[in-house]
Amino acid sequence: MAKYSIGLDFGTLSGRALLCNVETGEELATAVYDYPHAVMDTALPSGRKLKADWALQHPQDYLDVVRFTIPQVLKESGVSAADVIGVGVDFTACTILPVLADGTPLCFLEAYKDEPHAYVKLWKHHAAQDLAVRMNEVAAQRGEPWLQNYGGKISSEWAIPKVWQVLREAPEIYEKADRFIEAADWIIWMMTGKETRNACCAGYKAMWNKKTGFPSDEYFKALDPRLEHVIDEKFGRDILPLGAKAGEICDSGAALTGLLPGTSVSVGVIDAHIFVPAVGIHKEGEMLAIMGTSTCHMMLGKDEVQVGGICGVVEDGIMPGFFGYEAGQGCVGDHFQWFIDNCLPASYYEQAKAEGVNIHKFLRQKCESKKPGESGLVALDWWNGNRSVLVDADLTGMMLGMTLQTKAEDIYRALIEATAYGTRMIIETFRENGVPVHTFYAAGGISQKDPMTMQIYADVIKMPIKIAGSAQGGALGSAIFGAVAAGAENGGYDDVYKAAEIMGKVKDTVYYPNAENSAIYDKLFAEYKILHDYFGRGENDVMKRLKKLAAAQ
Amino acid sequence: MAKYSIGLDFGTLSGRALLCNVETGEELATAVYDYPHAVMDTALPSGRKLKADWALQHPQDYLDVVRFTIPQVLKESGVSAADVIGVGVDFTACTILPVLADGTPLCFLEAYKDEPHAYVKLWKHHAAQDLAVRMNEVAAQRGEPWLQNYGGKISSEWAIPKVWQVLREAPEIYEKADRFIEAADWIIWMMTGKETRNACCAGYKAMWNKKTGFPSDEYFKALDPRLEHVIDEKFGRDILPLGAKAGEICDSGAALTGLLPGTSVSVGVIDAHIFVPAVGIHKEGEMLAIMGTSTCHMMLGKDEVQVGGICGVVEDGIMPGFFGYEAGQGCVGDHFQWFIDNCLPASYYEQAKAEGVNIHKFLRQKCESKKPGESGLVALDWWNGNRSVLVDADLTGMMLGMTLQTKAEDIYRALIEATAYGTRMIIETFRENGVPVHTFYAAGGISQKDPMTMQIYADVIKMPIKIAGSAQGGALGSAIFGAVAAGAENGGYDDVYKAAEIMGKVKDTVYYPNAENSAIYDKLFAEYKILHDYFGRGENDVMKRLKKLAAAQ
Repeated sequence: MAKYSIGLDFGTLSGRALLCNVETGEELATAVYDYPHAVMDTALPSGRKLKADWALQHPQDYLDVVRFTIPQVLKESGVSAADVIGVGVDFTACTILPVLADGTPLCFLEAYKDEPHAYVKLWKHHAAQDLAVRMNEVAAQRGEPWLQNYGGKISSEWAIPKVWQVLREAPEIYEKADRFIEAADWIIWMMTGKETRNACCAGYKAMWNKKTGFPSDEYFKALDPRLEHVIDEKFGRDILPLGAKAGEICDSGAALTGLLPGTSVSVGVIDAHIFVPAVGIHKEGEMLAIMGTSTCHMMLGKDEVQVGGICGVVEDGIMPGFFGYEAGQGCVGDHFQWFIDNCLPASYYEQAKAEGVNIHKFLRQKCESKKPGESGLVALDWWNGNRSVLVDADLTGMMLGMTLQTKAEDIYRALIEATAYGTRMIIETFRENGVPVHTFYAAGGISQKDPMTMQIYADVIKMPIKIAGSAQGGALGSAIFGAVAAGAENGGYDDVYKAAEIMGKVKDTVYYPNAENSAIYDKLFAEYKILHDYFGRGENDVMKRLKKLAAAQ
Repeated sequence: MAKYSIGLDFGTLSGRALLCNVETGEELATAVYDYPHAVMDTALPSGRKLKADWALQHPQDYLDVVRFTIPQVLKESGVSAADVIGVGVDFTACTILPVLADGTPLCFLEAYKDEPHAYVKLWKHHAAQDLAVRMNEVAAQRGEPWLQNYGGKISSEWAIPKVWQVLREAPEIYEKADRFIEAADWIIWMMTGKETRNACCAGYKAMWNKKTGFPSDEYFKALDPRLEHVIDEKFGRDILPLGAKAGEICDSGAALTGLLPGTSVSVGVIDAHIFVPAVGIHKEGEMLAIMGTSTCHMMLGKDEVQVGGICGVVEDGIMPGFFGYEAGQGCVGDHFQWFIDNCLPASYYEQAKAEGVNIHKFLRQKCESKKPGESGLVALDWWNGNRSVLVDADLTGMMLGMTLQTKAEDIYRALIEATAYGTRMIIETFRENGVPVHTFYAAGGISQKDPMTMQIYADVIKMPIKIAGSAQGGALGSAIFGAVAAGAENGGYDDVYKAAEIMGKVKDTVYYPNAENSAIYDKLFAEYKILHDYFGRGENDVMKRLKKLAAAQ
């Protein structure tokens, strides 16, 4: 009898379930549920207004995802709950909420319905920026060794800034909360009845390290005396590696999901990192780029190396037994959309409309006939700062080479090329630090929809690019972890690498570098690098001075 | 009885006559005649095709301008030809044609009607670029001293490259031509029956110098042995200063124009330089910018100083008794139009259309509410290379500071500001070389139509800007020279400075720098200067390398 696994993938606006055959990886059914509260960034359900940079969610929406989508995929596929051996979960992160000791979200309590800090703080809640800055200052002053595992800088999107904001602005909520927990771990708690925490979220978003644990109480005390014991009081130090089993569906979990009690549930994973098993990556030196509005780069390494400008290196943080490296580019698809929104001439819109072609596709058609270097343009892809390898939010975009003959499609293509150069800069930085990169995978919207961009990337990085094979990428990765949580004795896998190899998928299409184009891109990348270092490493800090001047107006 | 003067202004697509009262400068009537042959850049009237970069005109069109427009302004104003004391002429340059000894254009001869080289080569005929390059090489090798009077480089738009092209490609036309003559001098010849040559065209376009004359025969011989005696054989060494009288209307000139024989005609002037008297400039240190698709800067100086990157310094070349300096920016209005054509989002077009507003005006409205520095952008205005002070056609545009919040109007304003920085760079270069600049005038379309740009210029250069008062700027300057050619004894002027003071006009509106804005622009200009030198003076020749790479594709 065939066995099945369900992957749950919680994104920013919706959650998805995917039901897979464990032996073949075949995807039998998928269901999506849009969060009714979506992102609350202006007001609570009560109408209470939120300040700028806030972004909240409602945990009821997450419960409703499992309540609706799991029964739906069972029904659609005709698979019996008895044949579902495991469930895996991936989630946006750090997406964190305050709960009671039994897991009840504070916002479910009548007393706190109108209290913003009682809700889930979504990953893109940016209202604790000042606290993140302070955390970096204190860590630098104290010479905290973990800081270098995060490229020398932690982000306001992470756990402690968000929790610290609660403490400062709503101390009674902080007091009342028995736990602050990642939404990934919380939804698993709701299904298993058991609180667990995963190494991926803890490592990448809460500065946890497998060997040294969390930052010291002294560090937290230096931030704010009331934070001294925040880890013991509000988190917990028991962190499970990826691939482990978090627990089994409990009775209330069974009532919620329609699955049988005892079904294995794996520990949670961040929604980007989950793509690694989904494409079958199972050894070091294989880089995965998840390309959307921004790009995340995931890498497995055998050693812990502090690579300058990398977002994080976490042991067991992506796959057990490896150091998981994460790097990033803050602006990829966003570049292209910015251009469409702000710079695309009306005549192009009209022509695309007349031809009935999507405007991105229309521009790509115009670009495709051109050769690398033909436009004479080169750009720095810093419209949203530089995440890796310079870790500098104050850098801004640059383009040069424009003439009166420069066309819109030339600029569009230069932006695409710039993001490819940014990726090559990340790859070369890994290599210079002794972390090998020999294979490249791509997932995410751009990898699925934009062959021209993928070909440019292959030509620029001079490696073949393999493309994620599942349209439900994240959910497939979770289903793989679900099968591993169940273990071989239940018809799943004991070894996540074997599971990834079998269930993970890439497309038949591989983008191979064109040697002639690569030779030209070598020259263009050399120019990019000179400009990258000139503007990015302190030789001419014009971008920062202009930003400061702009802020003063 | 009031006396009158007629100014004739020959542009690229049309010629214009303006009839003025000599005592008051009052403009009584104007008439325009569009050249029926316009610019011939693809084919001759016979249908014979022209190669790329060619730009020809038909001399019959110039004759028709005087034939139609002079009688029309006489008629419209009700002024009798007897009361017209002088005629002045300004013309595009170098716009040059081969003629017989009596002035007959070779293209009027039946035998040469189908021969492209028999026609007028318009200023923007660029098909002799290779010959200009060769001229610069030979001049540099020989250490020709005059080269530094032209910023170290002469242009393919000038006289000798054009004449040399005729010699190389159509030696029988070169042989047949008794003279090569600027169209300015030729139309005067047709009116006066007398060949003359003016210091403005000779100085700025044929390397003539009041003290040392033309380059030596040895130089021309080094270019091509057949060119050794080109000046004596095809030009002539008798050059008249501006403000001089070329002659008087002859009988055939009277038949052509409807003016009386004996009416004074002044020597010709280039259509940019003619603006200097038209705004009443009559002393050193007063700079005039003629701002259109590109910008020409005119300056009077007491001494001959070799200023790096200046287009030319010519004694008597703008006003008699002064050294006339010319500098230039190759791309001003063209920048703004490039942006509109290639980068402006459709939504803006639609909004402007809905509001019934011109798109440039619409963008300016969006810019106006912003403060200097607010956008965080800075650009190098090199979309068409850099004419002054770097004299480098291989430089290209650059912009930096873009973020995802950057709007189309920010980019548009940054382009305007960049051209203002370019102007300030020219002014500062003059000053550093000991040529004072203390007053600034502006003429041309932008000065008349675009108050925001003029205010930005005033804020950036930190000088008040006075605006040309006549909508027929060029023609008014010619009318002033016409009145001077007639002389005081005929009711005109002996002194061109007095004539310019009385007949020249500026508007009541003056753009005064705003001290607060200027303080910010000082900072932005400092950034511009660093980037200008970094990309323009050899520290990073990326623009040239990219251009070379593009040309190789």
